[in-house]
Amino acid sequence: MYHTIKWLGDGVSMLDQRLLPAKEVYTIYKNHKDVATAIREMVIRGAPAIGIAAAMGIALAAKTSAAKTFDSFKAELNAAADLQAATRPTAVNLFWAVERMKKIIADGASVEELTGRLEKEAEAILEEDIAINRAMGKNGARFFSDGDTVMTHCNAGALATGGYGTALGVIRAAVEEGKKIKVFACETRPYLQGARITAWELQKDGIPVTLITDNMAGHFMKSGEIKKIIVGADRVAENGDTANKIGTYSHAVLAKEHGIPFYVAAPISTLDPSTKNGAAIPIEERGIEEVAYIQGVQIAPEGIFIRNPSFDVTPAKYITAIITEKGVIENVAQNGIRHLQR
Amino acid sequence: MYHTIKWLGDGVSMLDQRLLPAKEVYTIYKNHKDVATAIREMVIRGAPAIGIAAAMGIALAAKTSAAKTFDSFKAELNAAADLQAATRPTAVNLFWAVERMKKIIADGASVEELTGRLEKEAEAILEEDIAINRAMGKNGARFFSDGDTVMTHCNAGALATGGYGTALGVIRAAVEEGKKIKVFACETRPYLQGARITAWELQKDGIPVTLITDNMAGHFMKSGEIKKIIVGADRVAENGDTANKIGTYSHAVLAKEHGIPFYVAAPISTLDPSTKNGAAIPIEERGIEEVAYIQGVQIAPEGIFIRNPSFDVTPAKYITAIITEKGVIENVAQNGIRHLQR
Repeated sequence: MYHTIKWLGDGVSMLDQRLLPAKEVYTIYKNHKDVATAIREMVIRGAPAIGIAAAMGIALAAKTSAAKTFDSFKAELNAAADLQAATRPTAVNLFWAVERMKKIIADGASVEELTGRLEKEAEAILEEDIAINRAMGKNGARFFSDGDTVMTHCNAGALATGGYGTALGVIRAAVEEGKKIKVFACETRPYLQGARITAWELQKDGIPVTLITDNMAGHFMKSGEIKKIIVGADRVAENGDTANKIGTYSHAVLAKEHGIPFYVAAPISTLDPSTKNGAAIPIEERGIEEVAYIQGVQIAPEGIFIRNPSFDVTPAKYITAIITEKGVIENVAQNGIRHLQR
Repeated sequence: MYHTIKWLGDGVSMLDQRLLPAKEVYTIYKNHKDVATAIREMVIRGAPAIGIAAAMGIALAAKTSAAKTFDSFKAELNAAADLQAATRPTAVNLFWAVERMKKIIADGASVEELTGRLEKEAEAILEEDIAINRAMGKNGARFFSDGDTVMTHCNAGALATGGYGTALGVIRAAVEEGKKIKVFACETRPYLQGARITAWELQKDGIPVTLITDNMAGHFMKSGEIKKIIVGADRVAENGDTANKIGTYSHAVLAKEHGIPFYVAAPISTLDPSTKNGAAIPIEERGIEEVAYIQGVQIAPEGIFIRNPSFDVTPAKYITAIITEKGVIENVAQNGIRHLQR
């Protein structure tokens, strides 16, 4: 069985998601700076998963510290926490996990005690995440019926989380209830998480998966082949506006046009009451080489302009329901997230 | 200066569009069967361009025939015409060009006379196409203002036609009127005509072009950066429903949601009064390797399902206007194409 990320006591093992589906390679990181680089370079991605990785990075900073005094130890850990927090701007789970670790740092009594507590906290964040995803799955499965064909975008699966997945976790829970579900996976340009990662993990589970390019989604909604849509989220603002992988917004507008329910599955740690609405969510723009090259092959002429926003914002009015581990938010545009917060 | 397709007297020269933007390679075809294969394998693509190629293929069949009698010569030519017509199913210009050639075949008096007339007709179809595109450009330029940023999908440019282009021809005409126009080119998965071909030809013309992935279109419509959209067409049904490259329909729905005008530029030969509506347009499904591999690099696991419809249908109600060489159809949903037919 594969794992997304695993704590090894003196290091962190991650499946290098950049190499999927061709190769299943696990890399062991023994230094918190390398963990930060792995997050930035998308060895691991997905809002919950990068939160876990950041927490483990901080635990690793404690394990490997050569600080001479407790004060310099805490200063080192806070700097390590800041480094993890600076890796990517959009997913709020990252900051949530770093804050959880920082509270423990602030609280610490000795090098040894603090190192132990940070290690336990990082492992707890991973274990809780899997339990959260299973609870989310149970809460969301009722929206999916036997025989449904469900479209998803990007990868909100086991490989975007500690395991089981958010959006794919809900699909897995429906399948575990005995429902036959087929999945349409949008390939998700530019990074191809749908083609490379979602297709890979659903195939491993034996859930039938059909790959389409992102621009086919509207066609298959119109043809009636897609019955429902479920995606993950990187941040949900107080009013319910939701940042998720670029392309999500287009799917949501198309879903509305075709009367297709559009679900978001996200843990409470993705809900961010401190962000008022979608306009306040920072959207990461990544390097243009992600668009101009596919696995090293150049697909566009040199010297043209290229844009590469990694996320977009889907206004609350397009979202049928937000499925969390603590319950489901319906009437998202009316309610925002105020009934379900951290 | 590059050319899309050129008649050489004893052969046809085509720019191999599969190799763009990395290489500008011209291949000379001396046999009508090889021309048909080139169309099927997308050496050349774009509704008007494949019509021209088919006509030249038929002229080449006449030039290279070893038939002993006039009857067997005509039978050979009709078989060659049928072979060209069977290359691709959606673009109606192909059938229109083949029909033009078949009428001449039916009319022919001798091998020599018929060979000469078919050669002249094929060359005329190419020359007329360029003139048509320039007229279309003049008719459509008024919809575009100085300072506009205009999104397009796929390639409806010089390389989709005899030259100048349909959608890009309208943009070129606006630029020739002195207007500053910026273009957002959607990369157009799976075949990447936007990234590889549209970006290449606009860059050659010095028209500023920004490449985006298809799933970014909605985001940039919402952000206000895209002011107008113009695309080509492969077939316009009697009621105005329009088949064009997969992804066009999604863009049209998004345009409506954002109040952005959505224009179709197409020659009269693309209007097909014999097709009642969009449901009657045959949609080509191409091989799954176009989705699973990008320039030879595998991006999806083996053994999953993959869909690859090459076109979709945009219902007339989403189309602001259809721009042709004979005039502009507004209120497309009310009028269909009945005022502007062949």
